[in-house]
Amino acid sequence: MTQTTAATATPLASAPPDATRVAVSTVIFTIRRDPRTDRMELALPLVRRTRDPHEGLWALPGGWLDVAESLEAAASRTLAETTGLEPSYLEQLYAFGAVDRSPARVVSIVYWALIRADEIPDAGIENTAWFDAASLPRLAFDHNEIVGYALWRLRNKVGYSRIAHGLLADEFTLAELREVYESILGRRLDPANFRRQAENSGTLIPTDRFRTGAHRPARLYRYDQDVELAERGPLSTRH
Amino acid sequence: MTQTTAATATPLASAPPDATRVAVSTVIFTIRRDPRTDRMELALPLVRRTRDPHEGLWALPGGWLDVAESLEAAASRTLAETTGLEPSYLEQLYAFGAVDRSPARVVSIVYWALIRADEIPDAGIENTAWFDAASLPRLAFDHNEIVGYALWRLRNKVGYSRIAHGLLADEFTLAELREVYESILGRRLDPANFRRQAENSGTLIPTDRFRTGAHRPARLYRYDQDVELAERGPLSTRH
Repeated sequence: MTQTTAATATPLASAPPDATRVAVSTVIFTIRRDPRTDRMELALPLVRRTRDPHEGLWALPGGWLDVAESLEAAASRTLAETTGLEPSYLEQLYAFGAVDRSPARVVSIVYWALIRADEIPDAGIENTAWFDAASLPRLAFDHNEIVGYALWRLRNKVGYSRIAHGLLADEFTLAELREVYESILGRRLDPANFRRQAENSGTLIPTDRFRTGAHRPARLYRYDQDVELAERGPLSTRH
Repeated sequence: MTQTTAATATPLASAPPDATRVAVSTVIFTIRRDPRTDRMELALPLVRRTRDPHEGLWALPGGWLDVAESLEAAASRTLAETTGLEPSYLEQLYAFGAVDRSPARVVSIVYWALIRADEIPDAGIENTAWFDAASLPRLAFDHNEIVGYALWRLRNKVGYSRIAHGLLADEFTLAELREVYESILGRRLDPANFRRQAENSGTLIPTDRFRTGAHRPARLYRYDQDVELAERGPLSTRH
C-alpha cells in the first residue's frame, strides 16, 4: 500500500511523531424554558478558555485524546471534567480537520448527545455556562461552525425519528412535544396539525394520566419502547 | 478550559508531538455484474499491503494525513495514488479510533463515495483489485468492520434517498434500478411491487427511449434533477 510520509517538523526517520494532534469536543443539547419569553429553547454548555489560543472566548467542552483511550472515552472524560455532565450515550457527529482551524494542526473528533434538563447537576462548575443555541457569541476556533452543523443534523433527524425522546421526561403532553420540535426547527408549528401527525405516528402511547395546572388538563403520552432507535447503528456501543 | 496532556513516549515538555497519528481511508462502492452468476453485486477496491503491519493482506485505499492538507484532500490524494480513482465527491463516513486497531495508535478518518462502473479507469493498478463487498477476505487492521459499517449506512440510506443514482448511468430501466437495490440490501425484491413503488416515488422521470436486446424492450428512466440531494448537507464542499 502506497503511503506518503506526513511532513512534520520532527526529524526522526522511522515512525516519526506527527505534528498533527487529535482532540475531542462534545455538543450537548438540552431543552429549557427561557424565563423571559416563557418559550422552550435549545441550550448547550460552553467552557470559557483560560489560556491561549482564544483565551477568554467560550468553547465546546473537550480536550486532547489520550494515547491509551478510545475516542468516545476521551469525549466522555473531557466532558465530565469540564462540565460535570455524564450522558449515558455519546454519538459521533463529525471529524473537523481544516488546516487553519487552530494555530497548530488539530483534528477534532466531535461527539454529541441530548440530555433532559433533569439530568443536569444543579451545582454550576467554574467557567462553564449554558447558552441558547440560537444566539451564541463568537466561539473559539471553528466551534460556531461545529454547533451549526450539529443543529443542521438535529433538524434533519427530528422529522423521522424519536429524537425528541432524548430531551423530554418519560411522560409528556403533546404541547410539550410540539415545543421541543419548535425549538429544534426554529419555527412555530400548527398545534392541530401537529397533534394529528403525532397521534398518527404510531410511536406514541397515551397514558391515563393528565398534566394539570393553570390550563385545561392535558393527557400525558409516552414513547413506545418497542420502536427501535434505528439511528444508533452497529457502532453505538463503546469501543 | 481544562485540558489534560496526552501521555506520549516523547519527552518534549512544551507542545509535545503526539504519539497518535491521523490516517485517512476511503470506501468506494460500485455496482458490477458478476459474470459467473449474471447478478449485480456491490464491489469495492482494495490495496494489497507491501509492508508491515499486515503485509500481504488487503486494505482500504488510504494513507497518512499530511499536516498541510484537509481531511478530504488527503482522502482524495491517497485514493488517487493507490487506485487511480478520482470521484467528484467524497463524504465523511466515520472516525475509527479504537486503541488496539493498529500496533501504533492511529485514528483513521474514513471517507466514502459511490461511482458508476463507467467512471473506473480500464487500466489496472499494481496491487489493487476489486472485491465483492459481500464476500471479503480478512482485511488488514479493522477494515472488515469499516466496510461492514459502510454497508450498514448504505442500506439505511437506500430506502429514502436517491442513493442508487450514484451507481447507475444517467438513464436506466426499472429492472436495473431494482438490481442495484437488491445488491445493496442483499435480498431479492418483488419486481411488480418495486415497479409500483418506483413509479410512485416522484423522483423518476420516464423517457421515450427503450433498452432493447434479448428481452422485451424496457423503458429507460432518469432521476428528476430538481430533487435535491438532501444528504449532502452544509459540509459537503471541500474544506
